Amino acid sequence: MKKINKNPAALIYPVPAAMVSCGSNSDEHNIITIAWTGTINSIPPMCYVSIRKERYSHDIIKRNMEFVINYSTKDLVRAADFCGRKSGRDCDKFKEMGLTPRKGEKVNTTIIVESPINIECKVTEIKELGSHDMFLAEVVNIQVSENYIDKSTGAINMQHQELIAYSHGKYIQLGDIIEQAGFSIKSN
Amino acid sequence: MKKINKNPAALIYPVPAAMVSCGSNSDEHNIITIAWTGTINSIPPMCYVSIRKERYSHDIIKRNMEFVINYSTKDLVRAADFCGRKSGRDCDKFKEMGLTPRKGEKVNTTIIVESPINIECKVTEIKELGSHDMFLAEVVNIQVSENYIDKSTGAINMQHQELIAYSHGKYIQLGDIIEQAGFSIKSN
Repeated sequence: MKKINKNPAALIYPVPAAMVSCGSNSDEHNIITIAWTGTINSIPPMCYVSIRKERYSHDIIKRNMEFVINYSTKDLVRAADFCGRKSGRDCDKFKEMGLTPRKGEKVNTTIIVESPINIECKVTEIKELGSHDMFLAEVVNIQVSENYIDKSTGAINMQHQELIAYSHGKYIQLGDIIEQAGFSIKSN
Repeated sequence: MKKINKNPAALIYPVPAAMVSCGSNSDEHNIITIAWTGTINSIPPMCYVSIRKERYSHDIIKRNMEFVINYSTKDLVRAADFCGRKSGRDCDKFKEMGLTPRKGEKVNTTIIVESPINIECKVTEIKELGSHDMFLAEVVNIQVSENYIDKSTGAINMQHQELIAYSHGKYIQLGDIIEQAGFSIKSN
């Protein structure tokens, strides 16, 4: 396979197009869509979001030291895109996109009710890296739509077919499940 | 939408199932498949991988302060799963999976030739978080298969249909492209 060398770039895909909500009241609440997010630790569960200093949400999160990661879905793709492009300085994105704000369970920050999974986070550290500040955070609560819960077991039954990924400038819906993790070492 | 509260957990999906290669020679080279990875900064381009201390690759990366993120594809899903489940203490994963090691361009670390995109990284910091250590790193070079390059422009033409995501215990192929980033604010 012939390879071409390219300049260093941010090219790790596919990643989430997460709608990150912030702010503890309707005067300051906002949504910023973020692909630079992920899990950084399992026990305790920790994650991060990286945000440019000049973004409106940056200071809101810094002030409250909380944010919520809200899953994007096919139905929410327009809202996700809008919230990544427009500034909360100029509009109330909840109102503009018809999204419902509600106070989190373990954080004062507003969640997006229409999103099927809301991951409530408390910031533990802000790390300056260059263009972006990385907010490291501990997950303190998760809200899951009952449609994503297996009624018999109570376990999370992810509705993958509703979810989207972000990859190199495109929103892409998840396709077929190929395999379950661990399949390669299962004896038949 | 009725929501159920669940205990804090690592639940940010979809994410990559990246094959991370490490080691600067065939005596120590290894591959570990990692979902806890992503971009943390754009300028300069930086990323991370989080790895449990007890994993074989942990010390190899700590010793060399380098790693390479290799894209997983549908064709590589068995190798990706195997490299996430087996330990390099017990086998040479390159040999077992029929993968070809080659020295990186800007790192001494081995890349996986069969992977269409190889992101060469130098570690800048190791952060202990609990179960996992987070390796923060700067991207120093990217190798891209010529099949992923637009011949007329030289730009990266991501072959999304070949890529896979990891979501809550499942490998999932990417489906249809829904929209281009920025579509919601384009005037028609």
